Amino acid sequence: MKLDAEIALAHRLADAAREAIRPYFRSAVAIEQKDDASPVTLADREAEEAMRRILTAEMPQDGVVGEEFGIRDGISNRQWVLDPIDGTAAFLAGRPIFGTLIALLVDGFPVLGVIDQAITGERWLGVAGQPTTLNGTEVHTRACKDLSSATIGTTGPHYFDDHQGEHFMGLAAKTDHRRMVMGGDCYNYAALATGQLDIVCEAGLKLHDFAALVPVVEGAGGVMCDWNGDPLHAGSDGHVLAIGDPARLEDVIEALSCHH
Amino acid sequence: MKLDAEIALAHRLADAAREAIRPYFRSAVAIEQKDDASPVTLADREAEEAMRRILTAEMPQDGVVGEEFGIRDGISNRQWVLDPIDGTAAFLAGRPIFGTLIALLVDGFPVLGVIDQAITGERWLGVAGQPTTLNGTEVHTRACKDLSSATIGTTGPHYFDDHQGEHFMGLAAKTDHRRMVMGGDCYNYAALATGQLDIVCEAGLKLHDFAALVPVVEGAGGVMCDWNGDPLHAGSDGHVLAIGDPARLEDVIEALSCHH
Repeated sequence: MKLDAEIALAHRLADAAREAIRPYFRSAVAIEQKDDASPVTLADREAEEAMRRILTAEMPQDGVVGEEFGIRDGISNRQWVLDPIDGTAAFLAGRPIFGTLIALLVDGFPVLGVIDQAITGERWLGVAGQPTTLNGTEVHTRACKDLSSATIGTTGPHYFDDHQGEHFMGLAAKTDHRRMVMGGDCYNYAALATGQLDIVCEAGLKLHDFAALVPVVEGAGGVMCDWNGDPLHAGSDGHVLAIGDPARLEDVIEALSCHH
Repeated sequence: MKLDAEIALAHRLADAAREAIRPYFRSAVAIEQKDDASPVTLADREAEEAMRRILTAEMPQDGVVGEEFGIRDGISNRQWVLDPIDGTAAFLAGRPIFGTLIALLVDGFPVLGVIDQAITGERWLGVAGQPTTLNGTEVHTRACKDLSSATIGTTGPHYFDDHQGEHFMGLAAKTDHRRMVMGGDCYNYAALATGQLDIVCEAGLKLHDFAALVPVVEGAGGVMCDWNGDPLHAGSDGHVLAIGDPARLEDVIEALSCHH
């Protein structure tokens, strides 16, 4: 798939989000609660608006799905999926490891993804059939010879319900859990794509949380799927797995199916 | 307390640690397990060695307590307490939010503390009786008008035993837990000192994990203590609380004393 124009546009979207977000980092920005009680700030809203303005002007035929402003239907088979700040809690805690997520779906499947860190200036770009890059340099997942040596990351147990948490613990207990990291949001997937983590396991993610991650992780040599091993798409139910070494896929799915 | 020479020395220690650590960040550094199964790398060892060399040469009369190389007794009432990489798991996961911790204890109580982030170049400096600074600029904790609006951070539930975890959950449930952040290690205390978090609550910390945090948090207007509200010192048992707004101290201690 030839996506040069879309790649250039994705960079401009990420630039616009970065410009909107940076002034609010570690400022006393007002916080509101959304219907699901998750926090949202002016930084989230202005970053998404900045990206939507560009898409409305330049890709009016494509649909847009954004975390803060919902769905704009298009007339093509393509949708841009935006999460202006993935990891709003981390952003509010002053951590430079939240991210702006930008994905392009074709027929409901992600073919382009950006993870942009506005403060450190890191930008991961994944495109179907192309190697993933971090600021223009190719990155790769690492080999993982067995599950017991794997490092796992997840944003936090408070994002699992009890049932999901038991399955997660079944998996985590079989990994090198002394190196397990909590927190991280999209940054965990970027770290996996850069060979720093072996497994990320989460539940309850929305399309805007995971769409951009798929091309980034897969273009770096990893695999993303749901907890059954099925590919992620616009209709997935939010149980998300990323595995750096595809040879460990079966072990992970099996461990995840057990209770702790 | 006049500590100008010690402050200058602490900066040189942090510079030396930074220089030792940076080449290993996101490299394929070998990982060993310590006796307690926690990970350690060459980066930890070389950073501590670099700091110890300086202390041996320039402060031979003072004791040194380091995470990796243990205790060197001194002949003064002072000890330098070193943690070359607090958050080794985060360091290994490629996150720029681990930290080098340097403290000076006098008669067992911390009077100077540095939290240094080798990748972002952030350095928090706290000195008893002086305002805390981040790269030379004063920082302050924020006000927190009630517990229900407080944001809490902790490195992860896997660092609590069951009993500690129940008490933590008793506290977390009374805060704005949708904004709770996991992970973070020393970076959470730095964020609290900079007005980005209200409470950090942990257990099982060693002297090298918490000594440097005390002057940083208290010089920014916050309070640090154990879970009973008592001051932290060389003999504390590792139950550690940081609270940005001292007016919330009683509420926090009370909430923490309840089971969830």
